[in-house]
Amino acid sequence: MNRKAIYPGSFDPITYGHIDIIKRASRLYDTVYVAVAHSPDKKLLFTVSERVDMAKKATKGLKNVIVEDFNGLVVDYVRRKKSCVIIRGLRMISDFEYEFQMALTNRKLACDIETIFMMPNENYSYLSSKLIKEAVSLGADVPDFVPDFVEVALRKKLKKK
Amino acid sequence: MNRKAIYPGSFDPITYGHIDIIKRASRLYDTVYVAVAHSPDKKLLFTVSERVDMAKKATKGLKNVIVEDFNGLVVDYVRRKKSCVIIRGLRMISDFEYEFQMALTNRKLACDIETIFMMPNENYSYLSSKLIKEAVSLGADVPDFVPDFVEVALRKKLKKK
Amino acid sequence: MNRKAIYPGSFDPITYGHIDIIKRASRLYDTVYVAVAHSPDKKLLFTVSERVDMAKKATKGLKNVIVEDFNGLVVDYVRRKKSCVIIRGLRMISDFEYEFQMALTNRKLACDIETIFMMPNENYSYLSSKLIKEAVSLGADVPDFVPDFVEVALRKKLKKK
Amino acid sequence: MNRKAIYPGSFDPITYGHIDIIKRASRLYDTVYVAVAHSPDKKLLFTVSERVDMAKKATKGLKNVIVEDFNGLVVDYVRRKKSCVIIRGLRMISDFEYEFQMALTNRKLACDIETIFMMPNENYSYLSSKLIKEAVSLGADVPDFVPDFVEVALRKKLKKK
Amino acid sequence: MNRKAIYPGSFDPITYGHIDIIKRASRLYDTVYVAVAHSPDKKLLFTVSERVDMAKKATKGLKNVIVEDFNGLVVDYVRRKKSCVIIRGLRMISDFEYEFQMALTNRKLACDIETIFMMPNENYSYLSSKLIKEAVSLGADVPDFVPDFVEVALRKKLKKK
Amino acid sequence: MNRKAIYPGSFDPITYGHIDIIKRASRLYDTVYVAVAHSPDKKLLFTVSERVDMAKKATKGLKNVIVEDFNGLVVDYVRRKKSCVIIRGLRMISDFEYEFQMALTNRKLACDIETIFMMPNENYSYLSSKLIKEAVSLGADVPDFVPDFVEVALRKKLKKK
Repeated sequence: MNRKAIYPGSFDPITYGHIDIIKRASRLYDTVYVAVAHSPDKKLLFTVSERVDMAKKATKGLKNVIVEDFNGLVVDYVRRKKSCVIIRGLRMISDFEYEFQMALTNRKLACDIETIFMMPNENYSYLSSKLIKEAVSLGADVPDFVPDFVEVALRKKLKKK
Repeated sequence: MNRKAIYPGSFDPITYGHIDIIKRASRLYDTVYVAVAHSPDKKLLFTVSERVDMAKKATKGLKNVIVEDFNGLVVDYVRRKKSCVIIRGLRMISDFEYEFQMALTNRKLACDIETIFMMPNENYSYLSSKLIKEAVSLGADVPDFVPDFVEVALRKKLKKK
Repeated sequence: MNRKAIYPGSFDPITYGHIDIIKRASRLYDTVYVAVAHSPDKKLLFTVSERVDMAKKATKGLKNVIVEDFNGLVVDYVRRKKSCVIIRGLRMISDFEYEFQMALTNRKLACDIETIFMMPNENYSYLSSKLIKEAVSLGADVPDFVPDFVEVALRKKLKKK
Repeated sequence: MNRKAIYPGSFDPITYGHIDIIKRASRLYDTVYVAVAHSPDKKLLFTVSERVDMAKKATKGLKNVIVEDFNGLVVDYVRRKKSCVIIRGLRMISDFEYEFQMALTNRKLACDIETIFMMPNENYSYLSSKLIKEAVSLGADVPDFVPDFVEVALRKKLKKK
Repeated sequence: MNRKAIYPGSFDPITYGHIDIIKRASRLYDTVYVAVAHSPDKKLLFTVSERVDMAKKATKGLKNVIVEDFNGLVVDYVRRKKSCVIIRGLRMISDFEYEFQMALTNRKLACDIETIFMMPNENYSYLSSKLIKEAVSLGADVPDFVPDFVEVALRKKLKKK
Repeated sequence: MNRKAIYPGSFDPITYGHIDIIKRASRLYDTVYVAVAHSPDKKLLFTVSERVDMAKKATKGLKNVIVEDFNGLVVDYVRRKKSCVIIRGLRMISDFEYEFQMALTNRKLACDIETIFMMPNENYSYLSSKLIKEAVSLGADVPDFVPDFVEVALRKKLKKK
């Protein structure tokens, strides 16, 4: 039996916090799908193919991790993959609130799918894509937050040196 | 003496969580005004008359509930109705923070008006208008979250099926 | 129709935070019962009759407030008084958690009884009986926290002059 | 490969909230060990064998669930079972804080063991063993909170008819 | 040795909550720099020079307070001032989350700079620039929230008489 | 002018989290008093002189740090030292609540004394003396949590080899 878990998100861009969760999940499941949401209504910095490319590059050493984009409801994607597990990282309280709401909403939409929460390493527990983008746009170096090639892409997008 | 309470909000659209609070309030007060805010500055999905219509339809079995729109400060509306009670539903922590701030702000603006908080049924404690709109826009059915006619209206607005 | 609300607690001892809530409730209801729980299993500083006496003294100017002790489930007491409303003050987050659990538990035990939450004046939003007792036992004066006669009683009990 | 997860706790007594988590976990893992901690330092109502017996009775329909007692560190128990997953239910904020601390502490003690968090049904999201015991000791019926045989045991222990 | 602290923010506009923190900080440090961020990406109501002017006017009685605008990373500004202390006010939980993230991000960017948190007077603990702007735009008077000249400026900007 | 700050606590025992805060404070103040509270009413594991000794040993490399015990109100101790600053570490939400209450209580008792909050390194943000004692009593090694000599003392007290 092949146990699969889905780790959905917008990954705009992927950070060391996401990568830490992916590594932890890849030790618990046979296959982990990193599912990059199109999210056309959200104002994202990177296109979906840029976000998929960065996620692929960041996880290429992990043999049982597959990066894909998806459109529509996450529970429909989970079913198409014949999985029944959504993985989410839990950082802080505000996370918890939103994640709890989203997980209960998904459960109503598909009662056979479970959301399980994992904790990132405490060194990444404060990482926020929003703050990273803000810091880079103001000229900061962020080697502790994202891989080098992501930092380069951020800088290019944000038109900083 | 006619005891009146005001339940203000944007109701964009009304959900089973709102309806649950209205029912509970209608058992405690002679008259409950469901006060639909114009909120011209918020990006809402429905017009104020659409929001009023849906709220009226959703509460039509409740004899002592009156749905009205209002513009301006909620404390001014409360006074025009000769009431002194604002009702708010409390769901989760993030709610609590914002509600607390708003209630204290309203108290400073009108110290004779009290905000009282009621809890929805735990089945509705996670309902979020934002998540419902997102789910419908991605193609989900939401019969556990809103009445049928609201779901139809959501689907039409969000130009899905 | 006589509208009654019950404000239960251990009141060990009554503070300005409690008194503030009682005053606010007394403006919204015909009768407010301040219900002092026996709570034999909790380690309280004052006996139930001492706690009732202090609560009576602190609220004697409020004509529609009645102080009583009660034993057993609060929902049973609420029914004996032919009321359907439990009032609780909400201060901070930790409060909210516990109060939410208790209110939902009471709702399951008696679905016709509603718990409504009121906010104390922000000057009392941090008052904690536990911290007040600790402060007095270490020699503090607490005129901002409790009425004079309560401070005297605290000092006597805690054997501080 | 036999995938095993450990669900540790004091289960004093087991509630519908615990049972809900056990059912969900039993669908995700080949074997779920319900690990009842001795916890000699905590003031528990039931003995460890009483707690094990109630947990066994409450889960007897679940073929891949094994109830055992354990002493010492939970990470040592997890290793003896050749598992690498601790399951915990997440209810509310206060839970989250404590669970987060405990999970990070366990991770430091055994970095190869992951704690994953699952959400109970929202109908059980407010259940607290402490409040259930308090309610029964005051004479309440609690059929929505625990199985019948647990209610009988609670009543007997708490010397209430 | 001249001890300097930096109090950064957008101050859009300065409120009694900010002023309270500035007064408290001015008693603990030789010089307090109120650093008004340009924040070109945030949708602010007032221009940076308007925000600087209001902050100067509001703090003119405090001899050791200097108001300046700054662009770029706050940690770079702190270094240019030869300070190592960032001051932030803590109001409520939601604050705490965001402030914690920002402080840890700043610490990674500049490990020699400490963020210290101070509490405003409880009378200002609920003040929110967002709610104040909303209240004024709906016609409220806000003398308890901001100095008179700020209220006038708000009214003018929000085109309310 | 000699700037002094007081870091009060029970330090039962001192952990790497406390030590991290002490180091950070020692860079911001001329003198930091680590004030070990007698706390006769709390059930502590170590005597006050044991707690003072461990704190002295753990901070002996820090020249401007002085460890002392104190009895009574912390604000009285702060005044005797001619300081006006209390330092507290902020870890998580539950901390924040309690710390906020205590700081506001202390401010009422002595309005000229400020409590300032500092953040420990995120590696120590989850450390809890309670969980450490529990872990050691169950046989865990805790080199990441406390200095070696504290671990030895804990083991001896808790009668674990």
